[in-house]
Amino acid sequence: MSFTEYPSRLLENAVNEFSTLPGIGRKTAFRLVMSLLRRNSEDVRKFGESIIKLHEEIHYCRVCNNISDDEICSICNDNKRDRSIICVVENIQDVMAIENTHQYKGVYHVLGGIISPVDGIGPSDLKIDSLEERVQSGGVREIILALSTTMEGDTTNFYLFKKLSRYNPLITTLARGVAIGDELEYTDEITLGRALNNRNPYQQS
Amino acid sequence: MSFTEYPSRLLENAVNEFSTLPGIGRKTAFRLVMSLLRRNSEDVRKFGESIIKLHEEIHYCRVCNNISDDEICSICNDNKRDRSIICVVENIQDVMAIENTHQYKGVYHVLGGIISPVDGIGPSDLKIDSLEERVQSGGVREIILALSTTMEGDTTNFYLFKKLSRYNPLITTLARGVAIGDELEYTDEITLGRALNNRNPYQQS
Repeated sequence: MSFTEYPSRLLENAVNEFSTLPGIGRKTAFRLVMSLLRRNSEDVRKFGESIIKLHEEIHYCRVCNNISDDEICSICNDNKRDRSIICVVENIQDVMAIENTHQYKGVYHVLGGIISPVDGIGPSDLKIDSLEERVQSGGVREIILALSTTMEGDTTNFYLFKKLSRYNPLITTLARGVAIGDELEYTDEITLGRALNNRNPYQQS
Repeated sequence: MSFTEYPSRLLENAVNEFSTLPGIGRKTAFRLVMSLLRRNSEDVRKFGESIIKLHEEIHYCRVCNNISDDEICSICNDNKRDRSIICVVENIQDVMAIENTHQYKGVYHVLGGIISPVDGIGPSDLKIDSLEERVQSGGVREIILALSTTMEGDTTNFYLFKKLSRYNPLITTLARGVAIGDELEYTDEITLGRALNNRNPYQQS
């Protein structure tokens, strides 16, 4: 649908805004806007304000850069979490993914990206200094590098290792191996090779 | 993802709001919200306000109930449109669809739905009285019933015909036939039968 064919400028604006969202085309945007039009003003105001408030009132944790309602995020504030283990991740989605496993009781450090020369992202663009300060200030026993298994991830891992090893904490990465539910014949050779080298004694689970 | 796992209440609210939209699940909602978080406040404020303004400042044309920025919509205001022909449609999308054909130079009347006992929608729930007034006030030569070819559409067509024929305007419906580009073998028999009965003298196009 071309612009001129919208019966209302306000409608057009809303559709334009929605179609700036990832994966939302103009037709979907129009459908979403029409569904909002059918609601009562109260709902729609709540919708619009939730977006505005999100951006204006959200905090990023002073300690780990995780998204938060307060200066310090709920995880860093939680005394039951082991502050001597820091899990370094790329973004907030990764924190949520790891939290969903309910396996991790340490704290996090969100880099806000990974080193990617192609995208012009260097160490200085990431929250690496604040990570170093945390390690420097002592009390950190282990640093888990939980970044993507991509070249950028490996580069960042290497950079962090070089930078942090001088404070000699234990630096670990996530185990590489065959994913649960994967069939061997469809597993790529690099993963399979790593899984073979890092094989573990069999234990009944 | 369950609620409790969101690191922020504000984030959760925004995700909840987005996931109330049709066809938007919680994961997509989260992705959309994160994409908004990456934008600057100015953009996000514009986004939120476009939604709120849409609902609070939008008008429905006093004449045809089309969506509009003013009391009277741009089509009813357009002196080049033939006000003696009224095309009766179900909703605003239909107006836009017909406008996109660039074939129609008359005006519209948006019913805001069709008679559907199943959904508890009766004539009184639709903008039928205002349509009757328009016809009653005279100057209407033709009424085109452009409703869906469903049972509800047919019911509404019949009701409108009964109600409006007393003012004896010409009452027409959209031609039924084989859609352009359709293959006969895949055309349903009812459409094909109608197309056969309403066959036209061949003309080179």
